Amino acid sequence: MKTISELQGIFNRYLSNQFFEKQPKELYEPFQYILSLGGKRMRPTMVLLGCEMFSHDAEKALPQAMAVELFHNFSLMHDDIMDNAPKRRGQPTVHEKFNTNSAILAGDSMLVYAYEYLIKNSGASVEKLIELFNKTAIEVCEGQQWDMNFENQNTVSVTQYLKMIELKTAVLLGCAMKMGAIVGEANEEDAQRLYEVGRKLGIAFQLQDDILDSFGDEKKFGKQTGGDIIQNKKTLLLIEAMEKANPEQRIQLTNWLEKKSFDQKEKVKAIMDLYYELNIRNIAESEMLKYYEDAMQTLDEIDIPEMSKTGLRNFAQQLLVRES
Amino acid sequence: MKTISELQGIFNRYLSNQFFEKQPKELYEPFQYILSLGGKRMRPTMVLLGCEMFSHDAEKALPQAMAVELFHNFSLMHDDIMDNAPKRRGQPTVHEKFNTNSAILAGDSMLVYAYEYLIKNSGASVEKLIELFNKTAIEVCEGQQWDMNFENQNTVSVTQYLKMIELKTAVLLGCAMKMGAIVGEANEEDAQRLYEVGRKLGIAFQLQDDILDSFGDEKKFGKQTGGDIIQNKKTLLLIEAMEKANPEQRIQLTNWLEKKSFDQKEKVKAIMDLYYELNIRNIAESEMLKYYEDAMQTLDEIDIPEMSKTGLRNFAQQLLVRES
Repeated sequence: MKTISELQGIFNRYLSNQFFEKQPKELYEPFQYILSLGGKRMRPTMVLLGCEMFSHDAEKALPQAMAVELFHNFSLMHDDIMDNAPKRRGQPTVHEKFNTNSAILAGDSMLVYAYEYLIKNSGASVEKLIELFNKTAIEVCEGQQWDMNFENQNTVSVTQYLKMIELKTAVLLGCAMKMGAIVGEANEEDAQRLYEVGRKLGIAFQLQDDILDSFGDEKKFGKQTGGDIIQNKKTLLLIEAMEKANPEQRIQLTNWLEKKSFDQKEKVKAIMDLYYELNIRNIAESEMLKYYEDAMQTLDEIDIPEMSKTGLRNFAQQLLVRES
Repeated sequence: MKTISELQGIFNRYLSNQFFEKQPKELYEPFQYILSLGGKRMRPTMVLLGCEMFSHDAEKALPQAMAVELFHNFSLMHDDIMDNAPKRRGQPTVHEKFNTNSAILAGDSMLVYAYEYLIKNSGASVEKLIELFNKTAIEVCEGQQWDMNFENQNTVSVTQYLKMIELKTAVLLGCAMKMGAIVGEANEEDAQRLYEVGRKLGIAFQLQDDILDSFGDEKKFGKQTGGDIIQNKKTLLLIEAMEKANPEQRIQLTNWLEKKSFDQKEKVKAIMDLYYELNIRNIAESEMLKYYEDAMQTLDEIDIPEMSKTGLRNFAQQLLVRES
């Protein structure tokens, strides 16, 4: 079994050999740019890992790993336009560095290229892969729409929030793992179990992201904490705080949410104080751990040697017991 | 053989039975809206026609016809954002009626749904269909980028212009015809010939569009003529006029192109006068007819009974000898 960092290395070498230096350069430069911003390559690594677990031949799934990475970057490019985000991984977003039209059109082509890689060397699995990928891609778009809807909604329930992050973030991790399993010729039941492992880890991963955005150590997290608080983002933390607050605390929270002009640090401190009073970190962490443990239990049920599961267990640990 | 209007009817009935009434409605309403704006349904009709020619069973290709129509509407939705267009078929564009974020995200999902329809009942042809569709989709994006590049370019050659409209418009018509042929189980050579017929007709069609935009009868054309002239659009007409102009005429042309503020009617009249002096309409029409005749010659080479070609011959006539 290859280790996670070996798989990451295999993917990064493959990626650096894919050339998008075609004409017109205005279309392909944003490709090169966003792919060069790096990142953990979590999704393609999950594809390779899924394949390695069943076949010990991770390389076979490289084109599908690339498909998932292209899809992910397409969605980042378009989400950044919709969210009006100036920075991505500390660098200007594509629409800032180039322009909005480039970010729309380059994103569109990345989505098409994702399908191009998806079918490469896929043999008899081609239909299964496309069906899974289509279903996932539609869910990710739906998740993004719910996320945008929630911004204009006064109240969002925990259930609605969990459904939104499932669609927007988690199903793509499930899809990545299952695509690897399909290329690695797992049986249908095990492939679906691996999908569930990925999906559940995805929800846990997003909850951990929410927790770190408020409670992370800025030095280790690599960016300013409190961003979600400043933007009134309806994360699990805020939703739980609203539900658990007593009338007086709810008034304080609502006042801060409604303020049009405020000192950012003051707002972050005030809301964090309420989070501490209401024990929000523990509530969110136990929700996160519930999904993590559920994922590990589903992993137990997969019919392969325990040795072949170690990589994924370590990877899950890395993703969830992280500080950045 | 079914007639063109029978095929259009078959497609419109199929389309009206496809429901995009899923949640979140903010994502799916723009789908319903743009598809309800109508249009000639030229592309899906070409898919059905391609299938009918080889199998007399056009209905078999309905999902692929839908795929092409969805792709076309996705590209309209995103192009309208990029071109800042307020109207489409006399109605507000999607980003005007809803908002830009909706138009981006609904467009993205339409592209994914196009793939969903593309593979429906496609059996053993699935890979061939996806490869053709991917290649075409990438070319359409490249064409749109060239078109945007040309706006900021001082000179564009006839060759560059023809290449741009080939990518942006014509290859999708080639793709539509060939997809129909594939589903209709044509042999590879004939399917490729039909692609060429569609591609050549597509170039002729776009040239006819350019001609009508300047020389059309407003009542029959259904919109104000002269739009391309007002916007300095580098169509074949303008490119040919710049090339054929004598020094004095070139100065007049350039002056009009460089004017920041002008009376629209006066500008249209001045440039139309130059077009008449330079015989631009004839030049453009003979270029258009060259592609049309070339397409019909390629159609001759296809190995099916002459009777099965009549529909496409009529359709080509309708497309090119039109006033709207």
